[in-house]
Amino acid sequence: MAGSLKVSPLLCSHKGTSQEAACLSNPQGAITLVGKEKYGVETYSYRFDGSNGRNPSIFFREKRVLDGFDDEYGGVVVNPEKLPFNTNVFASILRSSLSIWRREGKKGIWLKLPLEKCDLVPIAVREGFQYHHAEAGYVMMTYWIPNEPCMLPANASHQVGVGGFVMNDRNEVLVVQEKHCAPELVGLWKLPTGFILESEEIFTGAVREVKEETGIDTEFLEVIAFRHAHNVAFEKSDLFFICMLRPVSTEIKIDDLEVQAGKWMPLMEFVEQPLIKGDNMFKKIIDMCIARVGKRYCGLSVHKVVSKFDNRLSSLYYNVVDHQTHGCSTSYT
Amino acid sequence: MAGSLKVSPLLCSHKGTSQEAACLSNPQGAITLVGKEKYGVETYSYRFDGSNGRNPSIFFREKRVLDGFDDEYGGVVVNPEKLPFNTNVFASILRSSLSIWRREGKKGIWLKLPLEKCDLVPIAVREGFQYHHAEAGYVMMTYWIPNEPCMLPANASHQVGVGGFVMNDRNEVLVVQEKHCAPELVGLWKLPTGFILESEEIFTGAVREVKEETGIDTEFLEVIAFRHAHNVAFEKSDLFFICMLRPVSTEIKIDDLEVQAGKWMPLMEFVEQPLIKGDNMFKKIIDMCIARVGKRYCGLSVHKVVSKFDNRLSSLYYNVVDHQTHGCSTSYT
Repeated sequence: MAGSLKVSPLLCSHKGTSQEAACLSNPQGAITLVGKEKYGVETYSYRFDGSNGRNPSIFFREKRVLDGFDDEYGGVVVNPEKLPFNTNVFASILRSSLSIWRREGKKGIWLKLPLEKCDLVPIAVREGFQYHHAEAGYVMMTYWIPNEPCMLPANASHQVGVGGFVMNDRNEVLVVQEKHCAPELVGLWKLPTGFILESEEIFTGAVREVKEETGIDTEFLEVIAFRHAHNVAFEKSDLFFICMLRPVSTEIKIDDLEVQAGKWMPLMEFVEQPLIKGDNMFKKIIDMCIARVGKRYCGLSVHKVVSKFDNRLSSLYYNVVDHQTHGCSTSYT
Repeated sequence: MAGSLKVSPLLCSHKGTSQEAACLSNPQGAITLVGKEKYGVETYSYRFDGSNGRNPSIFFREKRVLDGFDDEYGGVVVNPEKLPFNTNVFASILRSSLSIWRREGKKGIWLKLPLEKCDLVPIAVREGFQYHHAEAGYVMMTYWIPNEPCMLPANASHQVGVGGFVMNDRNEVLVVQEKHCAPELVGLWKLPTGFILESEEIFTGAVREVKEETGIDTEFLEVIAFRHAHNVAFEKSDLFFICMLRPVSTEIKIDDLEVQAGKWMPLMEFVEQPLIKGDNMFKKIIDMCIARVGKRYCGLSVHKVVSKFDNRLSSLYYNVVDHQTHGCSTSYT
């Protein structure tokens, strides 16, 4: 959806603008001249007549700007491949780049600094850059130039977890005991769960987690429900999708690293566990899964769709009710 | 769910372990001694007899470790308040801390470096730390000590967007034209959309976005469907929830910063827009919204639940079907 691509003021202070004066006041003379070959920065010259009519003189000044490309929102994405390694050189080029970008009316500046160029981080901070997000190998820094509310897009805000409800034809549920779990959960037989991987689908993530933890092969049927919780890790939020899966194998082979034990547990024995029975959320989730098996509940099935707007094949999850039977369109067995 | 709290190997290379040799080989003598008052680092001494029986001698050695606390996974969370500002001091204390933590069998080390302590980033990288995530004011760095696969939890992987389908009793849909949008979307009358804010609920985010963009007050009814797309921004994924809202005010007042125009548009006129009509995804979404208004579709309503395991009040979204009417439990009007 367009909404997913829309810029957002989240996580963005106006530090960039408050730094303008400092940047504008930087004496141009302080900038050392370097060639683009050596440091991979675009150089260009312009010429103007500094005479006042009495003392005519013509001189040249060279301005340097960091290599990069314009984004569709009037910003600049700096090319991380062509960043100078020398911190002094970087400092002066970054300063002159900011004054050039400001004069050109640029808005958001994106500066991606790989781990091996971490020495440039303090320089960027001193010029008024802030952190935007980071992955293992890099930190992305941003600078908002305009004197108006920052419109840079938001950093990722959520982790996505999946849980698999897998029941065989003997009414036994696939359950595990986790190795690394909170003290209050020790001994609990629970559904296999985990985080989805980068760019992984919810339905494939659920199937993968079940396979990894228990060795059981499954087919995804539906998302039964999802839970939204906040301040789970690093003040981030958490979306957890309970998926109904159909088993296509029977032999359990647990992953010793993550899982303490795994087994097929009679449904009634599973729900009678005090920790499940006494917990509003777990009880509700299991009730829905049981209702789904009995076709008294419809979850969301996944449908691959392409939108013209981004030409992206994405997954649309929605409810398909069979209007003849008023039951779910996909049967469990 | 416990799954949401489970540690995950996502985004974690074994760089930490590959750096072990380097860290272990650091000569202890290289560490300068500092008092805790001055740099806010915990200091302690131990004493041992270095004699071989022939040349008895007793000497002292001082070891320093960064202030912090143990996490529940056998790791250490360094206290950002007590980090030394001096880079040389930090380098030596970090090195000695790592060798102490290693000897103590610690696992993951969490080092949060605020913007004002950005000078410490290159030092941490040289000691083998990687970036984990970052927000405007800080970067979180990690180091995995054990010689086994890294089990540090994942960084946030998703952005969450919401869109509001709002129809009045004259069968008019609340639509907007966006100011900042992709060229192919110019002129399209679309549903109000946006990102949810940090720790914001999906249902409140949808109501807020509609209010901000159009000035219309609404009540949340249901999540109709959601879309999962990948590599949307910074290689992150995107979850977009289409929400059905009931309007409780009529007068439109658009937000000039984000929105070009807004109006109540006859439903048929809205769906007949070539950009909607010709797009599989948009068409399907609108069809579901219309079906929901006619009670031929059930979305997911929100229910507040507390789980004993984290004592957190969270939102559980699921389908409630009225078994008398086989219709949705919540009526639109």
